[in-house]
Amino acid sequence: MPVLVNGSPADQLPVCDRGFLYGDGVFETLRFQASTIPLWAYHRARLEKSLVRLGIDCDIDVVASDIQQLLSQVDTTEGVLRITVTRGDGQGGYAAGDGVPRRVVASKPLPAMAHASANVRLCDWRLPVQPALAGIKHLNRLDQVMARREWSDDTVFDGLLMDATGALIESTVCNLFIRSGDQWLTPDLSRCGVAGVMRAWLLAEGLPALGYDPDVRDISLTQLLNAEAVFLCNSVRGIVPVTRLIAPEVHWPVDAVTQQLQRTVEALWHA
Amino acid sequence: MPVLVNGSPADQLPVCDRGFLYGDGVFETLRFQASTIPLWAYHRARLEKSLVRLGIDCDIDVVASDIQQLLSQVDTTEGVLRITVTRGDGQGGYAAGDGVPRRVVASKPLPAMAHASANVRLCDWRLPVQPALAGIKHLNRLDQVMARREWSDDTVFDGLLMDATGALIESTVCNLFIRSGDQWLTPDLSRCGVAGVMRAWLLAEGLPALGYDPDVRDISLTQLLNAEAVFLCNSVRGIVPVTRLIAPEVHWPVDAVTQQLQRTVEALWHA
Repeated sequence: MPVLVNGSPADQLPVCDRGFLYGDGVFETLRFQASTIPLWAYHRARLEKSLVRLGIDCDIDVVASDIQQLLSQVDTTEGVLRITVTRGDGQGGYAAGDGVPRRVVASKPLPAMAHASANVRLCDWRLPVQPALAGIKHLNRLDQVMARREWSDDTVFDGLLMDATGALIESTVCNLFIRSGDQWLTPDLSRCGVAGVMRAWLLAEGLPALGYDPDVRDISLTQLLNAEAVFLCNSVRGIVPVTRLIAPEVHWPVDAVTQQLQRTVEALWHA
Repeated sequence: MPVLVNGSPADQLPVCDRGFLYGDGVFETLRFQASTIPLWAYHRARLEKSLVRLGIDCDIDVVASDIQQLLSQVDTTEGVLRITVTRGDGQGGYAAGDGVPRRVVASKPLPAMAHASANVRLCDWRLPVQPALAGIKHLNRLDQVMARREWSDDTVFDGLLMDATGALIESTVCNLFIRSGDQWLTPDLSRCGVAGVMRAWLLAEGLPALGYDPDVRDISLTQLLNAEAVFLCNSVRGIVPVTRLIAPEVHWPVDAVTQQLQRTVEALWHA
């Protein structure tokens, strides 16, 4: 699968790149369909927000141009792009100097999509509270790597993560929504977590279009266990109904709203 | 300056390296003198501890062999090595797969050593509490990068960092020691922070050799402001007496014990 580094075909980058040295950069994982990015406006907004938060000055139009160039080279009609933007080369310390940001855009196949409904586990690993980096998709992802090491059972779709305060935040690769009565809730991500693009779309468009006014707030384990329905979401896999928590053992139905959201996202992808 | 990637001369690495993708790896920054690493036993112990904590299976003897190979190629008698060990190539997600760890060993010149005594600032940025990753030197260093962005004044040697609880932890590149009466103290690093090699040497050898039994505990801002003496330390710069905090404005003397430690470290380097 093709890769572009600063707009040119390459599969390597300098060992002095600050993304490698310190995780000093951000990324986006996008689904493409027939040479378009269905949720590009949301990805663009988050990429911009992430770059501003870290103080990395990279023109998003240049990234968009990289994406178009790469999409013109891929030989599949659907797949995944990972866009990484780092602060560029290091000068030998945390001080940034005047490096020029580096852009890496790579494509890979869509993951297997056999998850009509998903089993999840509750991770022991806790996300640290860091409001100053919460919400953005930066390259410091050791918490997710370490949480993902807790299981090797392929029947487990993902692991749910709580933060240090005990609130549910997300899974290793998805955001979380639960239904409590007629209210859809998703965790507040002001202390930690990645504010996903599919989550943003659901809050702004997907759920309102079905007449719901979703609420962003802290969600406790008890609220999760007592939820009427649960789903995970991200921009690659769309909406994944969660039907079972392994321990403690809890089952949830796949509810009609979740199924309607799945159909809406499918339509969005194949528009 | 030469660089070895997995033991071979190279200045690039694959864009799919998990160190780049997620910060999934560890590093060491070592001072070399006349083809030896004065504190190698301490670096080796921390590297081993860091790798074990992340579950990366890399033979330290191979890393030691890389270092010897690189030192045989450098044309200076003193300098700095950065050793990075990552979990190897990614499979397209947080799950590690069976990648082989990648080793990158690079040399660079010693930084300018004009800091007979240092001014420091107090950073606004707070370190998040994450006991599961505390103490080790992993590649997720955005907190240090962001804290370092708070100043550009070259007369500031470094910025002191507190954690989310308000305890003093370290500076962006050094560990902290303070003298309170006749007691030397250094922050407890069980919640966050990097347990430096020079700090380990001072606790095990440097201070005991001078008759002190240093204490590892939480240090509040009030304790820092009231300290009799303060120094920073790391394996590249040794012992750096701190004589001024910029805001709030506080001055400390350079005390005799700190000067004795500086001489001991100098002797260690030039043995």
